[in-house]
Amino acid sequence: MKVQRYKHDLDFSYTLGATLTYELIRCAPGSAQCVFLNSSTEKTGGIADLLASCEKYGIPVEQNDKAFHILSPKGNCFVIGMFRKDPAPIQAGSHIVLANPQDAGNLGTILRTAAGFGFHDIAIIRPAVDCYDPKVVRASMGAIFHVRVEAFDRIEDYLARFPENTRYAFMLNSSTPIRQVAKSEPFSLIFGNEATGLAEEYAHFCQSVVIPHSHDIDSLNLPIAASIAMFEFTADRWDGSAG
Amino acid sequence: MKVQRYKHDLDFSYTLGATLTYELIRCAPGSAQCVFLNSSTEKTGGIADLLASCEKYGIPVEQNDKAFHILSPKGNCFVIGMFRKDPAPIQAGSHIVLANPQDAGNLGTILRTAAGFGFHDIAIIRPAVDCYDPKVVRASMGAIFHVRVEAFDRIEDYLARFPENTRYAFMLNSSTPIRQVAKSEPFSLIFGNEATGLAEEYAHFCQSVVIPHSHDIDSLNLPIAASIAMFEFTADRWDGSAG
Repeated sequence: MKVQRYKHDLDFSYTLGATLTYELIRCAPGSAQCVFLNSSTEKTGGIADLLASCEKYGIPVEQNDKAFHILSPKGNCFVIGMFRKDPAPIQAGSHIVLANPQDAGNLGTILRTAAGFGFHDIAIIRPAVDCYDPKVVRASMGAIFHVRVEAFDRIEDYLARFPENTRYAFMLNSSTPIRQVAKSEPFSLIFGNEATGLAEEYAHFCQSVVIPHSHDIDSLNLPIAASIAMFEFTADRWDGSAG
Repeated sequence: MKVQRYKHDLDFSYTLGATLTYELIRCAPGSAQCVFLNSSTEKTGGIADLLASCEKYGIPVEQNDKAFHILSPKGNCFVIGMFRKDPAPIQAGSHIVLANPQDAGNLGTILRTAAGFGFHDIAIIRPAVDCYDPKVVRASMGAIFHVRVEAFDRIEDYLARFPENTRYAFMLNSSTPIRQVAKSEPFSLIFGNEATGLAEEYAHFCQSVVIPHSHDIDSLNLPIAASIAMFEFTADRWDGSAG
């Protein structure tokens, strides 16, 4: 199979690494199109399990060293999965909304936490990093196969589709600390991008909220702020259970 | 000045970028040894402010394109600071303890959150990534200049120095959810590394704690878990204030 470097307009993407590829086949076997091994991949242990799963689901396995040169030039990867993008519209319920996220690692980390705290629907306002970029897929540690991600051209388009959601906009200049805000479901937790945060206008159509911190830092890192918010808004659900 | 690539055994390190170098000079002017500009650095706006601060503190400024080739080969950086490492022993009080952190970006992000939530003392158990690695300094967004970081060869050495601290070990198999654990100051919040977490033995000398999450993910990302814990253990302090 001819392999090409990932681009946004392709209808497929890649899982770089054995664990991630295993997660693809476990969670989304219908989307998996091919698994590539290279000539130094040892077919023992976890790799043997992976190959058994491929056989079970009829997923072709191919030795293809060139795929590794193209997709993982650093050479620290011995299994690559290729999968069809299957975007599904987000559904009614509580959401995470990311306005213009730019960093692939950050988006992937947010998807991972979202899956961990039971958020299955993530809205992204363009322009934004492509959620199928292999770097996002990798940072999500496979969580991308557990959530729906839908991109909207404008925040207004998102708001019009989900008018019933209570909107919480995370803004540094808010006077409402996160612990004190009244939490009402379904809700939308809205975050700005890494460099600029949310525009002032968000305070007009959202309840603004802040995660208070000291003046030693300008802001929390975006995935950190989003994760603390996700935990805080769902902690009651998890209080009784341990993992 | 002759510039060399950063190595652990040097007694100085670097801030790569204008904002970070500004933070160095604002917070630790006595440690700053030199500021490098390259021939395309425009001396206007924030850079002019930076140069004024250098003059105020008697910090030499040098045009040195070679420094950029060596330290920031990607070419997306126009100011570099060079600073003397000034490690100080951690002090009595509540601490973050990181056993064998491996990833520079993760450590930097944890330092940033720590500074944000008022933790000024971070213990690191070796082997571990070097906290003065320029990648750590950068990911900390300058928070490294607001905290003390001390490395210990063994967890026992750390525990012997701070016997009064209540020890909380974050472990996936703990049966005590973070919201339900009795919190007693001063405390040590202890986290394992990215790949393996904490060894079972930690449960013998610590109260084990878990941040409950769904089975859709194996674990939270290390800086995410550490940040949620820092927030949860200090949230009462911040409830009344808004940033």
